[in-house]
Amino acid sequence: METFTITKIKGNDREITEDVVAQEIPFTVILRNKELVTLLCSPFDLEDLVRGFLFTSGLIKGAAEIKNMMIDRERWSCYVDMPKVETEKLIFKRLYTSGCGRGTLFYSVLDIMYKSKVISDFKIKTGSIADLMNDFQKRSEVYLKTGGTHSAALSDGKDILVFREDIGRHNAIDKAVGRALMNNCDFKNTLLITSGRISSEVLFKVRKGGIPMVVSKSAPTNQAVKLAREMDITVIGFARGTRMNVYSGEKRVNGKE
Amino acid sequence: METFTITKIKGNDREITEDVVAQEIPFTVILRNKELVTLLCSPFDLEDLVRGFLFTSGLIKGAAEIKNMMIDRERWSCYVDMPKVETEKLIFKRLYTSGCGRGTLFYSVLDIMYKSKVISDFKIKTGSIADLMNDFQKRSEVYLKTGGTHSAALSDGKDILVFREDIGRHNAIDKAVGRALMNNCDFKNTLLITSGRISSEVLFKVRKGGIPMVVSKSAPTNQAVKLAREMDITVIGFARGTRMNVYSGEKRVNGKE
Repeated sequence: METFTITKIKGNDREITEDVVAQEIPFTVILRNKELVTLLCSPFDLEDLVRGFLFTSGLIKGAAEIKNMMIDRERWSCYVDMPKVETEKLIFKRLYTSGCGRGTLFYSVLDIMYKSKVISDFKIKTGSIADLMNDFQKRSEVYLKTGGTHSAALSDGKDILVFREDIGRHNAIDKAVGRALMNNCDFKNTLLITSGRISSEVLFKVRKGGIPMVVSKSAPTNQAVKLAREMDITVIGFARGTRMNVYSGEKRVNGKE
Repeated sequence: METFTITKIKGNDREITEDVVAQEIPFTVILRNKELVTLLCSPFDLEDLVRGFLFTSGLIKGAAEIKNMMIDRERWSCYVDMPKVETEKLIFKRLYTSGCGRGTLFYSVLDIMYKSKVISDFKIKTGSIADLMNDFQKRSEVYLKTGGTHSAALSDGKDILVFREDIGRHNAIDKAVGRALMNNCDFKNTLLITSGRISSEVLFKVRKGGIPMVVSKSAPTNQAVKLAREMDITVIGFARGTRMNVYSGEKRVNGKE
């Protein structure tokens, strides 16, 4: 966070005051001397971000595939040593088939998973969702100070296991998933909570982890709903207290308490 | 918009009902048979999106540089005929220097503009900002129905000249700017209103148009504030009624009425 001297206006009054603003950095991930991506992100939990990004993009299947990771905080870069050969193919595909997009990474590669269902008996009651959302809102330290970040969390249905923040909603999810990977999280018995809207990209990330449920206080897109129904992922939007809209996979939401 | 049959939960009650959800498409922009980018966006005002995207990314300096544009609504693609040679260099740069990011397009190219100031005598009163924000909120048709879109508008300080919506906050800005380009908008006497947070990418887009002011009900990032101060762009965050925080360029905000 960075403090600026700003002018606060309230009707006719002007006041010179200090204001705390969320930090944003351009952070470049370098795989074996090749730039993979530059993410605009918050400058903390960067190891989690890289690990989660590589995982939810389909470049690694687990944390152990990363042999070494070195973060350079002067140049905001991360050097990743990851000797698997398939990576080359994926990067190639990215650059030449899907082009460069605002969150559109590896789209064509991910297309393949469209029909693959998440197998999970995970279940939760609406009262527990309300409790988790309440806990989730309170934890966002940077957001409460700056109003400038998104957050994401993984929960086992009872507690929040991991909570992460970032100026980007995708980054916050990657950070939470990246941290959970290190904890050997049993993804198929978790739900993901996100402060942002549920788009197709969020669904792809959730699918990569085999996470059976995603909950947001915000709205889903039609693509996200369609993908969720195909992949048997529970999607809950507009979750506010014990009110919520279940767009997909209602079987996992049973009863109030 | 697409209608889904969903389950609405309120405490102990469950109701099967219809819900309207914002549409999302993968939309590929093709320059002379080469894929430039795939944007995840809302399926309307696509001509505005392409024009604005090319402009705010620095690939064109005006609408006239696009010789022809053909939208294929079956494949969600746009074929652009644009014979300028410099384009090749820029695309090359994008792929090999900045890599592929979530909104990180052409970052290195844009770096060059860091010190270039926006020259404009544009001024506005706080009462006018409050009125414009009020008008802005009411216009978001898709948002009011789905809760799933961002919006952006250009104003001359009195009226909203262009208003556009999209599931992506950058896309909404590109659509507004793209439409304004067609209307020969005098950008240096306008302000941009966005429903989203003000990040460095938003500042770069605003700078490309030579727009002297950006206003949001949400927060800026530290990079956006720093860039705005260097480029002499007025940044107003948390604009709610006649309350607002002026992070940069206060000289353009004078008096209440």
